[in-house]
Amino acid sequence: MHILIIGAAGMVGRKLTDRLLENGALGGERITAMTLTDVVVPDRPEAPFPIVTLQGDLSAPGEAERLVAARPSVIFHLAAIVSGEAEADFEKGYRINLDGTRFLFDAVRRIGNGYKPRLVFTSSIAVFGAPFPDAIGDEFFTTPLTSYGTQKAIGELLLSDYSRRGFFDGVGIRLPTICVRPGKPNKAASGFFSNIIREPLAGQEAVLPVDEDVRHWHASPRSAVGFLIHAATMDTAALGWRRNLSMPGLSVTVGEQIEALRRVAGDSVVARIRREPDATIRGIVAGWPRNFDASRAQSLGFKAEKTFDEIIRVHIEDELGGTWAK
Amino acid sequence: MHILIIGAAGMVGRKLTDRLLENGALGGERITAMTLTDVVVPDRPEAPFPIVTLQGDLSAPGEAERLVAARPSVIFHLAAIVSGEAEADFEKGYRINLDGTRFLFDAVRRIGNGYKPRLVFTSSIAVFGAPFPDAIGDEFFTTPLTSYGTQKAIGELLLSDYSRRGFFDGVGIRLPTICVRPGKPNKAASGFFSNIIREPLAGQEAVLPVDEDVRHWHASPRSAVGFLIHAATMDTAALGWRRNLSMPGLSVTVGEQIEALRRVAGDSVVARIRREPDATIRGIVAGWPRNFDASRAQSLGFKAEKTFDEIIRVHIEDELGGTWAK
Repeated sequence: MHILIIGAAGMVGRKLTDRLLENGALGGERITAMTLTDVVVPDRPEAPFPIVTLQGDLSAPGEAERLVAARPSVIFHLAAIVSGEAEADFEKGYRINLDGTRFLFDAVRRIGNGYKPRLVFTSSIAVFGAPFPDAIGDEFFTTPLTSYGTQKAIGELLLSDYSRRGFFDGVGIRLPTICVRPGKPNKAASGFFSNIIREPLAGQEAVLPVDEDVRHWHASPRSAVGFLIHAATMDTAALGWRRNLSMPGLSVTVGEQIEALRRVAGDSVVARIRREPDATIRGIVAGWPRNFDASRAQSLGFKAEKTFDEIIRVHIEDELGGTWAK
Repeated sequence: MHILIIGAAGMVGRKLTDRLLENGALGGERITAMTLTDVVVPDRPEAPFPIVTLQGDLSAPGEAERLVAARPSVIFHLAAIVSGEAEADFEKGYRINLDGTRFLFDAVRRIGNGYKPRLVFTSSIAVFGAPFPDAIGDEFFTTPLTSYGTQKAIGELLLSDYSRRGFFDGVGIRLPTICVRPGKPNKAASGFFSNIIREPLAGQEAVLPVDEDVRHWHASPRSAVGFLIHAATMDTAALGWRRNLSMPGLSVTVGEQIEALRRVAGDSVVARIRREPDATIRGIVAGWPRNFDASRAQSLGFKAEKTFDEIIRVHIEDELGGTWAK
């Protein structure tokens, strides 16, 4: 089985690659080749089968054709210009997130001749725009308030239509905010949700720019990889033509995140969180989804953490070797 | 005020043109010029101001730029490849309905310099796909089951995003099935809804291919033109960034249509309807929306007929000069 990962150099792409190599198989079938591509050339891991790593821009002419020419059985399409950049650079966002996605879908379609790969597309909860119900259900409409969310919602529509027409077998998954996100603190407005856990566990101070009653929707990086693998292997007959799913997650307040950190790691770690209210970040976060009813994905076998304690423990196990800065 | 109508040669486009000429003004402002365009050159009506008629393909390079160069204040975008053809010719449907729409939106965007026209886009109830609730509400999700519906749903998303970014002031309206559609009987699967009224009133036999309990969602051509004019003149501040609206209409069964025809025109007219069940048409119609709760559009001032008797009377007044074949 040949697997193509587009956007393989990102955090989720790297974790997905590692998990696939660890498993050696996908859906019971042995992996025999992988192609990893991104705008920067992805690292090439050690593997008992050939791995090709490519640098490329999915929106460049011929690039999508080059990627699918070897007819990979499974395609993970994780590549995207992120929300802030798609908002700042209108044309670039549409070029990569809309045209790039459509070029990929059309490249698969044009091969034809019985070629019908499983295609997993990472969408986003940014397809939803406020005002929201208490929990966003599986039949709530998509009225994005960013160009990024618009581009993802369009990708979802194309994915369903191309699947219905038989060009590929698509599954679109709307990821929760990934928490605890490993790596350095960044300036993304959502960064603090991870910073206030990761930095104190690493012995560093973290800034909390919002009130403790701010509620948000989380899943661990480990769950995100689990979603992708389940989407690549599930029986899609159960989806019908409604090919896009809000993934399960955990709705918690910042206060609940902090209390979980206290239970898992103690008062001294929590003491490294410094309150520094920021009206701009508070304003941005106010427009974000807070809670979902992801019944459909759950009934289809997608699984996420049930407590924030568990999300913190996943971080400690997967990123910190089981320990932290006491 | 300069008005551009794209898709002006179609039934709705011609009726809209006539109404605008009759009114001489739109939203209290005098009309000083009109541009009418379609894939076939539209008729040029008599008018007290210049009317330019153009033949063109919106998906051809430069065509959208040509249409908006004179900076029309109001743009009606009615042009589309219809459902059956978009399903039969995948590439043509996407080229006209998606690329054509995006080219238009981008041509407006690129003018910039304070140019921000009102842009009215006709979407369709085909953005929804079965299974449906009893009445499709304003927050129900769009899961189209045709490529046409997919293309319209993408147009809606683009319309909202381009409006939010300030490139134009867009309103998308999802038209009910237009009934009674004037003209000759056609082979569209939905044709019988109009045929069974129009043909008997004209003294002709009509074929009814489905059972009388089939329910569907209707508005008259006169209401459709009213929707377009209201969308072009309403205060869009009330819309926020949710720019697309299911239009009001009337949900009736075929049996109720026939009883209305009996009340308005008598038994002898109804006797011209011949039952000839067609399993294919019954199957197609089963997947269509039957009923809507269009509260939002109604609260924003959009108005449709309240009874099917009224829809029939509109047809008799507007198309038959007030009388029919007894």
